Amino acid sequence: MILVNGVETGLVQAADRGLSYGDGVFRTLAVRHGVPQHWSRHYAKLCSDCEAISLRCPDAVLLAQEVSRVCAVEPSCALKVVITRGVGERGYRYGEDTVPTRILLTAPLPKYPQTYAEFGVKVRLCRLKLAPQPAMAGVKHLNRLENVLARAEWSNSGIAEGILCDIDDNVIGGTMTNVFVVKNTMLATPSLHRCGIGGLTRDRVIEGAARHRARCEVTTLAWSEVIAADEVFLVNSLIGVWPVRDIEGRTYSVGPLTRAAQNWLKQEDDAQMA
Amino acid sequence: MILVNGVETGLVQAADRGLSYGDGVFRTLAVRHGVPQHWSRHYAKLCSDCEAISLRCPDAVLLAQEVSRVCAVEPSCALKVVITRGVGERGYRYGEDTVPTRILLTAPLPKYPQTYAEFGVKVRLCRLKLAPQPAMAGVKHLNRLENVLARAEWSNSGIAEGILCDIDDNVIGGTMTNVFVVKNTMLATPSLHRCGIGGLTRDRVIEGAARHRARCEVTTLAWSEVIAADEVFLVNSLIGVWPVRDIEGRTYSVGPLTRAAQNWLKQEDDAQMA
Repeated sequence: MILVNGVETGLVQAADRGLSYGDGVFRTLAVRHGVPQHWSRHYAKLCSDCEAISLRCPDAVLLAQEVSRVCAVEPSCALKVVITRGVGERGYRYGEDTVPTRILLTAPLPKYPQTYAEFGVKVRLCRLKLAPQPAMAGVKHLNRLENVLARAEWSNSGIAEGILCDIDDNVIGGTMTNVFVVKNTMLATPSLHRCGIGGLTRDRVIEGAARHRARCEVTTLAWSEVIAADEVFLVNSLIGVWPVRDIEGRTYSVGPLTRAAQNWLKQEDDAQMA
Repeated sequence: MILVNGVETGLVQAADRGLSYGDGVFRTLAVRHGVPQHWSRHYAKLCSDCEAISLRCPDAVLLAQEVSRVCAVEPSCALKVVITRGVGERGYRYGEDTVPTRILLTAPLPKYPQTYAEFGVKVRLCRLKLAPQPAMAGVKHLNRLENVLARAEWSNSGIAEGILCDIDDNVIGGTMTNVFVVKNTMLATPSLHRCGIGGLTRDRVIEGAARHRARCEVTTLAWSEVIAADEVFLVNSLIGVWPVRDIEGRTYSVGPLTRAAQNWLKQEDDAQMA
């Protein structure tokens, strides 16, 4: 199902600035049993991302109604919510009165092997290095060619994800995930002030750690530190937590803090559905 | 007029990867007296940009036919040609069989004051710094949020363009133009191997210089060198050459190599229309 500005259609204006310039933001979330998982928190992230690029985020009530309409028709799906600057005239400049476009698209929930969450995944290091751009760092905007090019680096289906470093060989995240490591019982996840995307599940793991008095640091993480870590895991809103069992031949076992993170999320998920 | 895959419509698929990820490239050119100016050269740039992101560029004959159709209806316009990866499934990965989308959009030719080309323009330095990304540098791809954010820095209509530097304070270009400077009778333009967009008019000025035995260097150009230059001018396919008369209060007169560049382009333009 696709809703564009509340209308069921598969089409958007060709002159939309989302297409012309990638001038917009998005979120992807799971819909389960008709419930858009953690919607209010995704909406809050949508708002802060809109603010980062001076875009007016559509009204909470309006967007929640549209999300509900979609969930009623597709009670189990991956839901992508895209907000663009709207249809504009030619040129990079936008008018203050440009009306943002709301696009809701559904797709089947991805079917990953059960083993991924249980025994972990094999991942690779991408050759592409993320460019530092503090003005848009952390924001889930529509300029995602880096992710596309990085994901095109491999086709081996045995590799579940690619790790991306910045130009100084600090690990930033996966092509579609955020990364956590454990070193000496301390959790750490890369700082996203120069590049990368701040996913909601990353926030939820950081908060879960705080709730359970586990130490978790947001910091610069060199590639060498990730390789030397005791545990590594990947997160996003569709996969939850995937332990990493192999990065470029270096193997890890699934450790206690990875299992803890899975439980923190599960508790919240269960509470939401109760 | 808008043609999408040869069909006259204002609409594209909401699931097009051009919108989802900015996964595509584009060119903007002038159509005058029904002739798409320097089309074959724009097509060649479109092809090399497609290649840079592993996208199959549509067939030359097919695209030329569509451009001709548009030019017959709109003999005087700004024509934008967009090639996207096409409609894809959810996720950054694309299938080898994904069919690229062709979008041709027209807009009125921009009406800039006559004084711009004659006496020069006032420009500013943008606060936003371009991120270095060698994997996509020089390519006119659809990830243009940096340009959008930079253009949003000013609304004073007396300022015609904003200059963009990289994170090392080297000048890369304008938000919608390429930049040339003259120092001791030598032309120079920024190298685009780390960031920036390679416009066709930039190529044409470099070649014009070679044809007329003027020295022209493609090099790293520090902001301080641009400020200290004897002449500065801006180029793109719609404006031709604009002399710069003022950058942040530093004033320039319109020099002989700026006038020469205007003549080199005019000779080619006239030859094309003859």
